[in-house]
Amino acid sequence: MTSDPEYVHGYSERENVRLVDQATTLTHLLHSDTLYPPGCRVLEAGCGVGAQTVTLARNSPGAAVVSVDISDVSLRAASARVAAAGLTNVTFQQGDICRLHFAAESFDHLFLCFVLEHLASPSEALARLGPLLRPGGTITVIEGDHGSAYFHPDSALARRAIQCLVDLQARAGGNSLIGRRLYPLLLAAGFRSVRVSPRLVYVDSSRPELVEGFTRNTFTAMVRGVRAQVLGAEMMSEVDFDQGVADLDRTAATDGTFSYTFFKAIAVK
Amino acid sequence: MTSDPEYVHGYSERENVRLVDQATTLTHLLHSDTLYPPGCRVLEAGCGVGAQTVTLARNSPGAAVVSVDISDVSLRAASARVAAAGLTNVTFQQGDICRLHFAAESFDHLFLCFVLEHLASPSEALARLGPLLRPGGTITVIEGDHGSAYFHPDSALARRAIQCLVDLQARAGGNSLIGRRLYPLLLAAGFRSVRVSPRLVYVDSSRPELVEGFTRNTFTAMVRGVRAQVLGAEMMSEVDFDQGVADLDRTAATDGTFSYTFFKAIAVK
Repeated sequence: MTSDPEYVHGYSERENVRLVDQATTLTHLLHSDTLYPPGCRVLEAGCGVGAQTVTLARNSPGAAVVSVDISDVSLRAASARVAAAGLTNVTFQQGDICRLHFAAESFDHLFLCFVLEHLASPSEALARLGPLLRPGGTITVIEGDHGSAYFHPDSALARRAIQCLVDLQARAGGNSLIGRRLYPLLLAAGFRSVRVSPRLVYVDSSRPELVEGFTRNTFTAMVRGVRAQVLGAEMMSEVDFDQGVADLDRTAATDGTFSYTFFKAIAVK
Repeated sequence: MTSDPEYVHGYSERENVRLVDQATTLTHLLHSDTLYPPGCRVLEAGCGVGAQTVTLARNSPGAAVVSVDISDVSLRAASARVAAAGLTNVTFQQGDICRLHFAAESFDHLFLCFVLEHLASPSEALARLGPLLRPGGTITVIEGDHGSAYFHPDSALARRAIQCLVDLQARAGGNSLIGRRLYPLLLAAGFRSVRVSPRLVYVDSSRPELVEGFTRNTFTAMVRGVRAQVLGAEMMSEVDFDQGVADLDRTAATDGTFSYTFFKAIAVK
């Protein structure tokens, strides 16, 4: 999900670890129903550090996955991760997903996860990717939506801290409220049979793996991760921001709850 | 869900129709997994106009349901509805759910749907109801959460109009953000094995029955329903409120989406 290392965090090793932890925790929820048949060609547009690539390639061992990213640094991390996982069905290629030079209709399936949120024009990206897909092929898009986050105890400062994340993403040209928009985006790009399935992550203390893996180490960590930018841009005072993050952390206590929704869309060309 | 006729709407016939339409649309999502075995006694605490009672009694034909409400007017409507459905396993009784005179441990199961949101002290209600349940019996609680509503296109005025609903409910002593609190409430009331399962209603134009049944005729209708109170209390200007409602209605268009989450909790005594 969320805060692209490139735009918001910078490529730290720690950030890579966080993104991979996050992917592991949410793997089943987001990816267990993405299985491509042997022999098909899958384009992963925007693979980042390969957090999703490993799952994608592992779940469809007979498929040939081509994973593209604009960042060489990310591609190297992704390639190392895929190799470490012993997977051999992924090819990496550097490129801007809006300007790829593959032959028309050369892929059976397109896969994008946590990519459109970073783009100034997600419509354009979908319009440029569509021609690479064969007629009858599918596109799968997974995105988060920071406006879907709510929690107990509620906290105005925690909500403001999250809004800082949304605003930073917007300043960087992205949209972290994009989950709710997947349906119209795919429809407008000319795909048919668009089906959106929301994946709500609900956390309370009866689900300790999510308390750690999601509330603390994914969402709260992500908000904490933009502290320097928020204070640098004077979006919130230091005291307020830190209290907002502490309030988010508070929702991980025994009597707290946390909800966040990812959106997964599948459509046909 | 939501705006209690007693506190927010007044008991209009039209309101009864809306509540029943709403229940029909959401019946499967909320109730299909509530099935009580033959011979058991179920207490429905706060049955209102019987919108849920019909489903409850129909899904568990061998169970004896005792449905209680504080309002005689509601009870008459509920009784008529249950009779019209040809159901004979429901007994109605007038009473305040915090002051019921049933024998201790005389019920096998407790069922509350869209009730706690209206109470100044939901904790007290659960504490008073607990002793009526036999050890090992279950409690099922279903509530909405207005803070879980988000939509495309987003609209600050629509969000403000929804906030008016939340504020009106709060002024009436209730809490329309209670869904996220079910887990700690049941835990604090001494129930064990508390399991909360959120039920997200996601609406886009590929789901026309929900566009009509939920976005338009349930949620937007509910917000529109508090217009007089909002204007009377000068919570928003007429122009702004009407635009907020129009913006909500706009989310029911072909390129709109709407999300709302109900919470269902089941716990054991």
